[in-house]
Amino acid sequence: MDQILNQLNVEQLNEVKRQMSIYKQGVQDIIPLEDLERKVAKSILQNKPLKIKLGLDPSAPDVHLGHTVVLNKMRQFQDNGHIIQLIIGDFTGKIGDPTGKSVARKQLTDEEVKHNAKTYFEQFAKVIDMEKVELHYNSKWLSELNFEDVIQLAGKITVARLLERDDFEERIAFGKPISLHEFFYPLMQGYDSVVLESDIELGGTDQHFNILMGRHFQEKFGKEKQVALLMPLLEGLDGVEKMSKSKKNYIGIDESPQEMYGKAMSIPDELMTKYFELVTDFTPEQIQTTKKQLETGDLHPRDAKMLLGKTIVRMYHGIEAAEQAEHHFIAVFQKGSMPDDIPVIEWKGDKETSIIDLLVGLEMLSSKSEARRMIDNKGVKVNGEQVGNPQLILTVTDGVIVQVGKRKFIQVKM
Amino acid sequence: MDQILNQLNVEQLNEVKRQMSIYKQGVQDIIPLEDLERKVAKSILQNKPLKIKLGLDPSAPDVHLGHTVVLNKMRQFQDNGHIIQLIIGDFTGKIGDPTGKSVARKQLTDEEVKHNAKTYFEQFAKVIDMEKVELHYNSKWLSELNFEDVIQLAGKITVARLLERDDFEERIAFGKPISLHEFFYPLMQGYDSVVLESDIELGGTDQHFNILMGRHFQEKFGKEKQVALLMPLLEGLDGVEKMSKSKKNYIGIDESPQEMYGKAMSIPDELMTKYFELVTDFTPEQIQTTKKQLETGDLHPRDAKMLLGKTIVRMYHGIEAAEQAEHHFIAVFQKGSMPDDIPVIEWKGDKETSIIDLLVGLEMLSSKSEARRMIDNKGVKVNGEQVGNPQLILTVTDGVIVQVGKRKFIQVKM
Repeated sequence: MDQILNQLNVEQLNEVKRQMSIYKQGVQDIIPLEDLERKVAKSILQNKPLKIKLGLDPSAPDVHLGHTVVLNKMRQFQDNGHIIQLIIGDFTGKIGDPTGKSVARKQLTDEEVKHNAKTYFEQFAKVIDMEKVELHYNSKWLSELNFEDVIQLAGKITVARLLERDDFEERIAFGKPISLHEFFYPLMQGYDSVVLESDIELGGTDQHFNILMGRHFQEKFGKEKQVALLMPLLEGLDGVEKMSKSKKNYIGIDESPQEMYGKAMSIPDELMTKYFELVTDFTPEQIQTTKKQLETGDLHPRDAKMLLGKTIVRMYHGIEAAEQAEHHFIAVFQKGSMPDDIPVIEWKGDKETSIIDLLVGLEMLSSKSEARRMIDNKGVKVNGEQVGNPQLILTVTDGVIVQVGKRKFIQVKM
Repeated sequence: MDQILNQLNVEQLNEVKRQMSIYKQGVQDIIPLEDLERKVAKSILQNKPLKIKLGLDPSAPDVHLGHTVVLNKMRQFQDNGHIIQLIIGDFTGKIGDPTGKSVARKQLTDEEVKHNAKTYFEQFAKVIDMEKVELHYNSKWLSELNFEDVIQLAGKITVARLLERDDFEERIAFGKPISLHEFFYPLMQGYDSVVLESDIELGGTDQHFNILMGRHFQEKFGKEKQVALLMPLLEGLDGVEKMSKSKKNYIGIDESPQEMYGKAMSIPDELMTKYFELVTDFTPEQIQTTKKQLETGDLHPRDAKMLLGKTIVRMYHGIEAAEQAEHHFIAVFQKGSMPDDIPVIEWKGDKETSIIDLLVGLEMLSSKSEARRMIDNKGVKVNGEQVGNPQLILTVTDGVIVQVGKRKFIQVKM
């Protein structure tokens, strides 16, 4: 470490500091921090970019803000001239779950993998420069391994080490079965790092164990060990669970400006600064300022949230769309004195449903006749628009806001 | 089960009974017994031989009486027209130990594997008819498996099930590492049974877990499940540890008639009936008779042991050599009133050594001058022959018997 830093001149040392301050911002953990500093220093000294690895599961190509936490960090490395290694885990994807128990891990065809990868890239292009990305499919090297190679690989890790993974440990404790093939997913991910000689691997904190596998196997194969850079997990709109498509608590980066803006407005207040930090392009200084203003009361939470919504829409749709979304929101909701927090309620009925059934089903009104009367009295709005026809059949979509009277609002979750 | 038995006529039913009584003799466990009966019945009904599997480790080709426990059982199946599947575990042997920790599991070359297999066969030919044996090298199918196949295989077994193996359980309990590749040895053995569609797999009780893996994987692959036929482990000449080359407590089936006979005489009395049962060709009736005679005292233990020694020599060298060995023993030892139990002492000195050093080193005499005096007085015998020359240099071999005076005997262990 010191040996490398000693070889740097003042300008180069300042450059190490500058980059480090960027990379450290918002991260949950860097393991180990010294190695990252050494790698950055070495890259500056030798004028050689670092290789930053990100593995992708080809089965779920819908990119939402949760993914951009890691992508934004990658972008910072890319902005400083380092190389992104995107790895499509197609080998894993093509295998599926041999026990046939997990529906999530169903076998993908070559075409599905390619299609999903393409979908990823189109969306990623909104955050990182895809022209400069190194693209890899891990089936290239994993499908070449034979039984003997696999045994050699397996010989480099102990069962006890694998059982340390939180979810394995838990399943053993509760007597839930772990199929032996599951032990291979961390091995594969680790072996990818060996093949690609990655310097840094990025992931959410839930990737802690798997990313350290890369370090482990690189060492066993006599390579320089990668650094694990772990980003916090982003809670979704419910404020509780990790943002994910299956939980329906996400903002997709392909969603329309109005949808995005509207969903952003439903983020719980206490998560706002975390969102500013992890999913916007705000500088550390801007984030600090916003934080302080919220604390002092100089900035009203709803205004902060509008700033957040506008920023997110700007990042994915441009400034014009962002301003339009804001105007729309003000016109439709704010002028009708929409409250800060709208309760979110899940709609379990049909997607195509009558307005009467919806109002009763959501328990906003206690009977069909009451609902009909309220519509007749012009007391019902959907997404800010008054409903005139009590026979209206509408298509319920995620995030639709239903209003009854002046004060009763519900945001529908699908 | 009953369905098959119902289809047999009286003669066939008697044949099932006859075979079952032979196969059950001397075994430790048959898992499950009903399946064996069903398989035997089916084979008689369809006039189709059963496939009897035995796996061999190609790293230790010296066959001793411990191995013949299983071989004798195989021979019984062969005598009834069933087919022996001998599997040389060359795939395992060629891999060695990827962690490099085990000296025992060093990597074997193709030539070594072939040479060791040949050595096995020459020795096996003394017990089973090698002309009728089906020979397999498991590298044929195991080396064809790729990573995806391995994952499919691994998906058919849980980690908890593998950890049930006694030695794994123990190592986990004591915090000793299990390398992941070790999980593959039982998998491979199980998969061999899938490929070969074995009906019965034979082994010692220490193979309990591995042989049941065959049943497990055959079921997972939709095949008829094999029966595990487990033979007791044979304690070696020390009466305590399992007979093995490394423990030097064995009788090799390639040893000379005199060595065999001499070693047989050192078997502890309490193991005698077990040896009659497991390593001789005595019928169940003959074994019963011998047992009874020993109990009533009609047969002196030393005479029983001589019968055992003679029988073992006869099986591997013929009746003439057996009689000669007996005569030699009587001439050399018994006439000199050799005691029943000769203490066995390990010789840790050079193989080529002077008789004086040997006598002092074995602590039969307390000094070199005393040893010289005893030789001069014609009081020292080696293998029953008087030593005349105190300068004698002799080659110490395993089992050599040294005698000092009338009563002091030691059998040397190398």
